[in-house]
Amino acid sequence: MPAATHLDRLAVVLVSPHNPLNLGAAARAMSNFRFSSLRVVNPYDVAFRDSRSAVGAAEVLTSAVEYGTVAEAVADCALVVGTTAVRHREIHHPLRRVEYGSRLIRKQMASGRVAILFGSEKVGLSNADLSHCHWLMRIPAYGDQISMNLGQAVAICLYELIRDGRARESSGKMKSSRSKTATAGDAERITASLFEALQKSGYVRSNADAFIEEKVRRLVTRMNLNHDDAGLWLGMLRQILWKLRKTE
Amino acid sequence: MPAATHLDRLAVVLVSPHNPLNLGAAARAMSNFRFSSLRVVNPYDVAFRDSRSAVGAAEVLTSAVEYGTVAEAVADCALVVGTTAVRHREIHHPLRRVEYGSRLIRKQMASGRVAILFGSEKVGLSNADLSHCHWLMRIPAYGDQISMNLGQAVAICLYELIRDGRARESSGKMKSSRSKTATAGDAERITASLFEALQKSGYVRSNADAFIEEKVRRLVTRMNLNHDDAGLWLGMLRQILWKLRKTE
Repeated sequence: MPAATHLDRLAVVLVSPHNPLNLGAAARAMSNFRFSSLRVVNPYDVAFRDSRSAVGAAEVLTSAVEYGTVAEAVADCALVVGTTAVRHREIHHPLRRVEYGSRLIRKQMASGRVAILFGSEKVGLSNADLSHCHWLMRIPAYGDQISMNLGQAVAICLYELIRDGRARESSGKMKSSRSKTATAGDAERITASLFEALQKSGYVRSNADAFIEEKVRRLVTRMNLNHDDAGLWLGMLRQILWKLRKTE
Repeated sequence: MPAATHLDRLAVVLVSPHNPLNLGAAARAMSNFRFSSLRVVNPYDVAFRDSRSAVGAAEVLTSAVEYGTVAEAVADCALVVGTTAVRHREIHHPLRRVEYGSRLIRKQMASGRVAILFGSEKVGLSNADLSHCHWLMRIPAYGDQISMNLGQAVAICLYELIRDGRARESSGKMKSSRSKTATAGDAERITASLFEALQKSGYVRSNADAFIEEKVRRLVTRMNLNHDDAGLWLGMLRQILWKLRKTE
């Protein structure tokens, strides 16, 4: 994951976007992942104006900068990467999957500005647009008949940049009490209560069925209960037992 | 990356989706990454009907199945994962980042069905929805003030599942000899039986104590039962119930 201070070194460049919803979605993904520099080349005026008033991404959109050409939009960037679905196009560039490409981008962001170009919804980037790119990146979507949604493509590319492959448990505040493991004594009390309930209900035929008792003990042991859950089980079983005893 | 033949073992479950555009976007991401099983719980009828006629994802949407409850939608799944933005909620579940959680999901998909639940655009998953989940997963978005767009969240979770990091550990076979994991349907039957026993024994005061019911469901879910143990539990609880009913 790039240092937070480097995130502003990435420019998301949307070339000739048509649909204001996609512009809004791209901006929202940028907010989610804390990227701030949105550049829009030659947008459909209406789309651009509409999307600026979209909910939830005000800041990124309001500070978006409009350019007349790709050349101007990427002028300050040391690395320019084009995105493509690569359908029937002849490719003159190195083509990298986003998993790998994003690593190169992160590296570059440590020292300079990077632009990722996204083309319009219908036709993608033109050959002229691509001529500004050092290399191309693709998301490994299947089914070439269905192109990716622009907002989703932006989200996935940005996600790859902030992704942390070593992440395990969430760093978020986690209330999940990995509470203390129950003791064997707890487990044995649960076993005894459950076994008695089974006797009283007729599940166990004779009063001392060692086979079933062991089976129940193994079952309870496999539950790997924590301390709190053991208490909960015991409370429930005791109540059930109390009721069963009353029927005798 | 899971084998292509396993992709149909993942069910994307959208709970109470409101916006037809998001339904369409979720379906489109599924098509892009070749997942096919879309389940919709309690959708806004209009939204569902509208989205079925959306462009670009006809097949996934047309074959989407509608359910009345989360329990029914996940009944055949051995692992149920909820997604959350985790803002101001107290969490009773393990919470995993998507980078790590997706690895666990892929593993499970080698042997059984998995459901990933996505809540509605405004409020996410309810506590009742979450009580069906084994654990929760979050996308490490920053800026908690801005929630993720539903279509983008689905796209990123699915992308993680088909993602092929070169740093990935080699794909050793992970066929464990443990018995098959119990399905969520099994767990739900155990929950229902246990809850009824608690009602009949007086542990639950009113006849519909949703709080206790959710607590019981979480307890049972945490047991991580395998198929055989689930059958054993169910047999025992049914016998106990039979006896308790006789006392009424």
